[in-house]
Amino acid sequence: MENLTTPPYLDPNSVGIVTPQILHFDEPLQLECQRILPSFDLVIETYGQLNAERSNAILICHALSGSHHAAGYHSATDEKAGWWDALIGKDKAIDTNEFFVVCLNNIGSCHGSTGPTTINPDTGEPWGADFPLITIKDWVKTQVILSDRLGITKWHAIIGGSMGGMQALQWSVDYPERLSKAVIIASTPKLSAQNIAFNEVARQSILSDPDFHEGWYVKHGTYPRRGLVLARMVGHITYITEDAMKAKFGRDLKSGKFMYGYDVEFQVESYLRYQGERFSKNFDANTYLLMTKALDYFDPTRDYTTDNLDEKTALEQTLARTQCQFLIVSFTTDWRFSPERSIEIVDALIANGKDVSFINVDAPHGHDSFLFDIPRYANAVKGFLSAPIRHSSKTSSA
Amino acid sequence: MENLTTPPYLDPNSVGIVTPQILHFDEPLQLECQRILPSFDLVIETYGQLNAERSNAILICHALSGSHHAAGYHSATDEKAGWWDALIGKDKAIDTNEFFVVCLNNIGSCHGSTGPTTINPDTGEPWGADFPLITIKDWVKTQVILSDRLGITKWHAIIGGSMGGMQALQWSVDYPERLSKAVIIASTPKLSAQNIAFNEVARQSILSDPDFHEGWYVKHGTYPRRGLVLARMVGHITYITEDAMKAKFGRDLKSGKFMYGYDVEFQVESYLRYQGERFSKNFDANTYLLMTKALDYFDPTRDYTTDNLDEKTALEQTLARTQCQFLIVSFTTDWRFSPERSIEIVDALIANGKDVSFINVDAPHGHDSFLFDIPRYANAVKGFLSAPIRHSSKTSSA
Repeated sequence: MENLTTPPYLDPNSVGIVTPQILHFDEPLQLECQRILPSFDLVIETYGQLNAERSNAILICHALSGSHHAAGYHSATDEKAGWWDALIGKDKAIDTNEFFVVCLNNIGSCHGSTGPTTINPDTGEPWGADFPLITIKDWVKTQVILSDRLGITKWHAIIGGSMGGMQALQWSVDYPERLSKAVIIASTPKLSAQNIAFNEVARQSILSDPDFHEGWYVKHGTYPRRGLVLARMVGHITYITEDAMKAKFGRDLKSGKFMYGYDVEFQVESYLRYQGERFSKNFDANTYLLMTKALDYFDPTRDYTTDNLDEKTALEQTLARTQCQFLIVSFTTDWRFSPERSIEIVDALIANGKDVSFINVDAPHGHDSFLFDIPRYANAVKGFLSAPIRHSSKTSSA
Repeated sequence: MENLTTPPYLDPNSVGIVTPQILHFDEPLQLECQRILPSFDLVIETYGQLNAERSNAILICHALSGSHHAAGYHSATDEKAGWWDALIGKDKAIDTNEFFVVCLNNIGSCHGSTGPTTINPDTGEPWGADFPLITIKDWVKTQVILSDRLGITKWHAIIGGSMGGMQALQWSVDYPERLSKAVIIASTPKLSAQNIAFNEVARQSILSDPDFHEGWYVKHGTYPRRGLVLARMVGHITYITEDAMKAKFGRDLKSGKFMYGYDVEFQVESYLRYQGERFSKNFDANTYLLMTKALDYFDPTRDYTTDNLDEKTALEQTLARTQCQFLIVSFTTDWRFSPERSIEIVDALIANGKDVSFINVDAPHGHDSFLFDIPRYANAVKGFLSAPIRHSSKTSSA
């Protein structure tokens, strides 16, 4: 019997079938760690049409495990949409009827842009452990180079969730004149000691895996699967909530009774192992390490304040540089980057008299909430993006 | 120059120098997993004097990494006191002037009682991975056998924090006539899905370590050090609080600047690795696995309720069996077993008209708070233990 179901790429709100492009940049890239990348590639996808004024472009920045593939499908038989398909498309929160949406894969990642898995031109072999550590600021720098290549002088908006939100925040202080709006979702002005602690457990899981070989697992014909599984398991616990786990699994047993052994007994164990195993098949260990370090290092105040300032004052002084309008979004159940962390950004912006809107959205998915099409959240993003850009005048119009 | 500092064992409130005793039990022990231990040893310590009526005995139940050595010192040069020395001693919360205090090392542990590291009489070799999985209920059963050996028909009180509190709760339902008071501190009526998830990450860390050899590392001349380090690191994050980590380390850097590598950079990483390394030197991997399973399995309602009851009703029906007075203690910053979990026990006891006192103590140490001498907490324990035992009469005295 013929399958008469409409393929998902034909959904009227979908951006449909999309094709990634690879852009090559031959100029050397000076990195924060003082090393220089001789050249680099960026893989990007775009959705919608750039208008004649080049004023309707939106940049999407991805989080730890994300990629350039944010929306649509790669073929007519592809059943899995891009990671932010819930929000990007025709008439969706990030409306591709109105905007030209660009999403790139960051360098250091493992989805096609230059990173540990791509070839080091100096050696002809994969970069592996030799790939330099990258910071959020470095990513923003590459995104500026990309903007120039695309001929986009000023982004209508730069948007990201989690680590993506950090990139949007970094843009707003490093290149204040190059964006009109920033949407910073489920993010934080910097990681807490507990955030770093969880990252460190994930890193040690990989680093201590005997198959890691100090990052040269490809040369050794091995792969630190066990380390990646553990890293993802501990990470995953922080992405969702205790209540969500309770609602989904509670203390349900896989076989209905205690087995008195170390095979899977509780459903939550099965779920967690599955998440870890699946992730370990599709992700590079060196990239995972690099990404967690980029998170730990993130601190937009570093270049704009003197040492020994308290964190609140440092953030206020730094955000004084910003010129764009902000929408800050947090989620009530996010315990990785809690609403309090978003409020730190909001408070520092308000203290500077900046144009900032904030919503704390009631959602049950914890940190992962930013990936979902939650009406209050989607409406806020859509309204914020579509509204005319506000300009402030130096004197009152009265 | 001579060291004139008074050695700590001479502190007037200390129980001083104590000597563990090994008690051998030749009777076979039927376990919940359906296996039988042919015989077993228990290592115990006692502090204070048993009175002529044998009515002033208090049993201390230890948590995951605890032992029989709860108070005092093992020699005149020993500088490290037992794990609960803050609370056990002369004029302390658990007053050894008044009470005869017994603390045992549970079977399955690695501090001298029968467990994976002791000799299996059937093979003449260490039990290793052959040691059966043990439940909280099994431990209570061995503690009843110990009570009989010591000639203690009824304990004045049974006390424990965390997993120790679970043992006290299990006693109150399994042997209601054998204790007058129960003190259940920083505990829970059962583990949540998130608790199990963290335990599962710890277990997988050990199980996936190539040096684990399915539990036969001693035979292989190896030791799953990496797995134990990771297990303890992730556990430790849940024992303390985000605020405590922030206060203690914040984002302080070990060398004062970013190193752009995977060696220790932030102080919190250094602390966490130290905790993991120290623990891995003093603990047995099979024991760690067994302890986390005992936690996961804990459910005092299992033998006393029918399936398909909701959790609240099941706990109420189960705790109807209890006859002792209860003191339940939780700590505001404990996110491993939060105050809400203690309140579940309190509510179920009150619904049964039981004699229960509850304090939620403001303390900054998270789950580990139960180990500290916090005045409100210590005073509550002391007052509860010293007060005359209340007896309820069937009819009103009016």
